[in-house]
Amino acid sequence: MLGLQLPTDPRWVNLAEKSLEDILTDHAYCEQKAATSCISLIQLFPDKEELVRELAPIVTEEWGHFRMVLAELDKRELQLGRQRKDEYVNELLKFKKKGGSREERLLEHLLICALIEARSCERFRLLSLHIADDDLKQFYHKFMVAEAGHYRLFIDLAKKYSGEEMVKKRWKEYLTYEAEIMENLELRGDRMH
Amino acid sequence: MLGLQLPTDPRWVNLAEKSLEDILTDHAYCEQKAATSCISLIQLFPDKEELVRELAPIVTEEWGHFRMVLAELDKRELQLGRQRKDEYVNELLKFKKKGGSREERLLEHLLICALIEARSCERFRLLSLHIADDDLKQFYHKFMVAEAGHYRLFIDLAKKYSGEEMVKKRWKEYLTYEAEIMENLELRGDRMH
Repeated sequence: MLGLQLPTDPRWVNLAEKSLEDILTDHAYCEQKAATSCISLIQLFPDKEELVRELAPIVTEEWGHFRMVLAELDKRELQLGRQRKDEYVNELLKFKKKGGSREERLLEHLLICALIEARSCERFRLLSLHIADDDLKQFYHKFMVAEAGHYRLFIDLAKKYSGEEMVKKRWKEYLTYEAEIMENLELRGDRMH
Repeated sequence: MLGLQLPTDPRWVNLAEKSLEDILTDHAYCEQKAATSCISLIQLFPDKEELVRELAPIVTEEWGHFRMVLAELDKRELQLGRQRKDEYVNELLKFKKKGGSREERLLEHLLICALIEARSCERFRLLSLHIADDDLKQFYHKFMVAEAGHYRLFIDLAKKYSGEEMVKKRWKEYLTYEAEIMENLELRGDRMH
């Protein structure tokens, strides 16, 4: 459904559950970045009424997720660590078309958000299915559902502002590029991507 | 109570109510910056447990305020405009000590946040007392109360991490500097500061 071209190696779950403090820390910062990315979109495109009204509650939700992850760390007496460099997102950003019209830049921004949500969703699904701890299974299931909704929203907003055809074409290019990134990134249990 | 050394000229309220779309837009972005500023503090000091746990809900609250302002714009069929350069905050940032230990940088960051909350609180109070529209009187009263609480929280956090004496000394310096900024800034109805 998400269109991702390279499924994550399921052994990633085993790596992740061995470094729970790190994976939760990384997850927390992913939620934080999701919130600030929506805030940036609102700042850059305050004139796009539907975008602003749709994304304003998403910021609240993403920040709520940050706090849920923080609560999970506290419950397990684990510490929130420092934010790491996000190689996956940095690689994705390289594919973003520079310049162009405001509408083209909006499309790039929205599709990158959609892609990060899609990959996060795929990974939360794996965690929700295969992690040993039952509480964590449920914990990750909630995030999987939320990320799927956000992915859908970003794609819908892209279609609204750039049209179905344009989105289809560019989305395909992004999917191909994203699969290459995933192929080249080391599979590590201490990060979501 | 807030210790501000230069009260705002009450005529500012008359200017503000004449440019309601602008003042609400500016207010919305002040709330947005308050949210992202707390997010930055969390990112920079994830090891300060109390700070992270105290500020995480403040981000939710500040973003909720952004959405309240957005709803007020919608109700009045006004548009969210673009973000302006924030001269007040930029001037304040010039006073921030560069370098120093992490603890010193944290103190500077917290006191600047406290100061912006204090001045916003003072201005919301003026609006809540003197604006003609009764709905807006109540609207601004809510923000005044919230900002007073945040001012208190930032000062308390500063005291926790830097000690009472240090905070007292540096806060006095900030108050003096802030009064000079206010004296030199043009009084405009299209912005909160």
